[in-house]
Amino acid sequence: MRYSPLLTDLYELTMLAGYLDQGMQEHRAVFDLFFRTPPFNGSYAVFAGLENALCYLEELRFNEEELSYLDGLKIFRPAFLSYLETFRFRGSVTAPAEGSVVFSREPLLTVEGSLAEAQFVETALLNIINFQTLVATKGARITLAAAGGTVLEFGLRRAQGPDGGLSEARAAYIGGVRSTSNVMAGKCYGIPVRGTHAHSWIMAFPDELTAFRHYAGTFPDSCILLIDTYDTLKSGLPNALTVARELKAKGHDLVGVRIDSGDLAYLSRQVRAAFDAAGFPGVKIVGSNELDEYVIESIRSEGGKIDIYGVGTRLATCAGEGGGALGGVYKLVRIGEEPKLKLTSDLSKATLPDRKKVLRAVAPDGSYIQDVITLKDEELQPGALVFDPANPLQHIRLPANARLVEVRSQVMHEGVRCAPSPTLDDCADRAARELTLLPQGCHRLVNPHLYKVSMSQGLNTLRLKLMSRIQNRYAAGEADGDTA
Amino acid sequence: MRYSPLLTDLYELTMLAGYLDQGMQEHRAVFDLFFRTPPFNGSYAVFAGLENALCYLEELRFNEEELSYLDGLKIFRPAFLSYLETFRFRGSVTAPAEGSVVFSREPLLTVEGSLAEAQFVETALLNIINFQTLVATKGARITLAAAGGTVLEFGLRRAQGPDGGLSEARAAYIGGVRSTSNVMAGKCYGIPVRGTHAHSWIMAFPDELTAFRHYAGTFPDSCILLIDTYDTLKSGLPNALTVARELKAKGHDLVGVRIDSGDLAYLSRQVRAAFDAAGFPGVKIVGSNELDEYVIESIRSEGGKIDIYGVGTRLATCAGEGGGALGGVYKLVRIGEEPKLKLTSDLSKATLPDRKKVLRAVAPDGSYIQDVITLKDEELQPGALVFDPANPLQHIRLPANARLVEVRSQVMHEGVRCAPSPTLDDCADRAARELTLLPQGCHRLVNPHLYKVSMSQGLNTLRLKLMSRIQNRYAAGEADGDTA
Repeated sequence: MRYSPLLTDLYELTMLAGYLDQGMQEHRAVFDLFFRTPPFNGSYAVFAGLENALCYLEELRFNEEELSYLDGLKIFRPAFLSYLETFRFRGSVTAPAEGSVVFSREPLLTVEGSLAEAQFVETALLNIINFQTLVATKGARITLAAAGGTVLEFGLRRAQGPDGGLSEARAAYIGGVRSTSNVMAGKCYGIPVRGTHAHSWIMAFPDELTAFRHYAGTFPDSCILLIDTYDTLKSGLPNALTVARELKAKGHDLVGVRIDSGDLAYLSRQVRAAFDAAGFPGVKIVGSNELDEYVIESIRSEGGKIDIYGVGTRLATCAGEGGGALGGVYKLVRIGEEPKLKLTSDLSKATLPDRKKVLRAVAPDGSYIQDVITLKDEELQPGALVFDPANPLQHIRLPANARLVEVRSQVMHEGVRCAPSPTLDDCADRAARELTLLPQGCHRLVNPHLYKVSMSQGLNTLRLKLMSRIQNRYAAGEADGDTA
Repeated sequence: MRYSPLLTDLYELTMLAGYLDQGMQEHRAVFDLFFRTPPFNGSYAVFAGLENALCYLEELRFNEEELSYLDGLKIFRPAFLSYLETFRFRGSVTAPAEGSVVFSREPLLTVEGSLAEAQFVETALLNIINFQTLVATKGARITLAAAGGTVLEFGLRRAQGPDGGLSEARAAYIGGVRSTSNVMAGKCYGIPVRGTHAHSWIMAFPDELTAFRHYAGTFPDSCILLIDTYDTLKSGLPNALTVARELKAKGHDLVGVRIDSGDLAYLSRQVRAAFDAAGFPGVKIVGSNELDEYVIESIRSEGGKIDIYGVGTRLATCAGEGGGALGGVYKLVRIGEEPKLKLTSDLSKATLPDRKKVLRAVAPDGSYIQDVITLKDEELQPGALVFDPANPLQHIRLPANARLVEVRSQVMHEGVRCAPSPTLDDCADRAARELTLLPQGCHRLVNPHLYKVSMSQGLNTLRLKLMSRIQNRYAAGEADGDTA
């Protein structure tokens, strides 16, 4: 699918027109894409969406129809529209690999190029990275809560339109949700697709047992029966047991049953006990109905016997406290030779200026200690002093025995990818591996341990210098205001 | 854009394969799409997405590539894949017009056709209608909270992928949000596009005043300046006043200023007072920063002077209590000659069986009194007894002077549309009009008046009959279980 360059906020275009008027379009600029708060009141995020973002950048060009629409808006001069005809993205991108565990304030994407191209791609990059990173993170949280149980994604019907459902399935896979009901996601991304039948299947037959038998007849080797249409324990369970016996007599195995309502912890224990007692310990129990990481954790803590968690709405919409959206932003950090800082009244929201590196301090056993953001050309050694971005006076010393590993690499150079894309499985494997390396407590759903991200001395010094320069400008601005 | 038929849950396909095995694919079936609870703990929803849903139904066909993918899954027989080659939607659809105000339990779409076609389209219809109806409703809530202030949608960067942003802009427009930053939505749907510049524009210049001047130079007649990059009152405001004067001297008017952080109620009062005192009462104030209906209402109640509310994340994601997703479902209500009922432990969740009509009781002054769901061929008169779906013993009498108006009409017959689509403006106008006709209290953000939706006597009687029939079957099921 082509990403249209019109998938952008109008202000990217009005700014471009302005830069062109000033002859500034070729000034060199550096932008960082980052988030300030981890989603879901958690400790981390799982980075996703890079592949789609790079596709967008590679394909970026305006076609005639799009230019003619812009012309019709009557806000742009002909010279600007001509400029757009040959407009391409020829910049560089630095990013973590998809599936990497990432943290607040760290630059995820860094985009470096002409002011025009690096500014223009803001909206699309945020759209792609914000949503996929949010879903990958939710997928990871749910997968971790399932503690080895399988998770199946079926959020398409509540997703934000067709493509919302598609990118959701992709990102959830990276987070650990390795099957989907979404057939298009299966085709586009090779994700294993799963699905059985709805309540309507049961209701289309004179009775539940007949419906079960016919479904088993069509799918004798992949049959999962939905047992809560009438009454899970009184009707669905005995009928499913009957079909399990009938399948067995014909040399097949009932794969499982699904419970989609009621108290899943209680019902799954009863259903498990009944199948075990009847000699069917292999029959899997699928549970669904507004599940998320919190509900799954509570079902497990009450001894629920769910093997496969079907997760829909709350994954597709990333609902829940601190959810709904990843607040990723895209900020100018350097223009020409000048590092830039955006200050706000809240110090912890001030941006980190200039080109940067993200280093991860890794313990000898491979586990993660903390991250440090440094200036790009700064050398950082284990044992160095590092500073808290929310409070630049607070500092700690990195362990002397830590290895410092760069979290990101250059993925695009002058508009061309630096390496072939990893497979989706590579990305999902990376997330699964990295999640195990986090400090204890980072996975806790309530009040998790907050992973530390510090600044290097060089970055801290530059930031303080720029802050005081802006303070001086405020004073000047105030004088202007007084005399105005 | 083509909707792929693979944008579906796998179970729609496995059920189809099963129906084909049973020779049931041509049985006549009727499905209702409805929601059980209004979103955002509100009283109503604004129906949207029908145009996209009808496009999907019209275009539904499997191409070779899609069939070959399904073949590769190794779960379907060749006869089923051949069947899919000529599979089309040739059914009928009844629905409200887009922009209609609708309520819980009422059938929105009713799809009637072969069991195969009517079942298959479930996932896509839910995907399209759930999301757009949710956003249109959020858009209406925000527009009503703005109480005549303009609302501008700019949620693309936090939306669920490119298409999420596009359908969001469309649906929000229907709800009342009549401009967008999303250029693609402008091109596809003719929605007016708006936008100025980001903080990065300011930071790309040596100082704020220079940045303002250059922006005004490029757009002297459509200039809105973002005044909170450094300090709204000390720097942004005086600099914007300077530019307003300079523009005026050249015969232009500064259109407005935007405030994107801080206490918008306080800052907007200060900024308004300063522009008024300087002789610029026409300069508009745009406010943005995590706005939604609640924040807008509180800004207004504190005397904030915002003319244009820019709404992004919370509209795009429909965040907030009771938000995130519309819980629309799609239920079988009739197969062959048999009305169907899906029962759950919660009576209020039991479906309403059979083909139905939705009637609105309208007072002589045109305002809405309540809705009544009846059987399709039932005649209902003003003054009739009607029943509560959550408690079938509770009944009231419709006012004798009410007119009864049908809320829905047939929009597709044998796969072909019955009428040309209304324009998007028609839909938005309808929503604006219908929202004013709701009973007092329905717009309240907290504990709104709940609009009454009753059942007719005929529907109530049929539902109770089917319930008792299922109860009898439970008893039989229990006996099976005991003897198994």
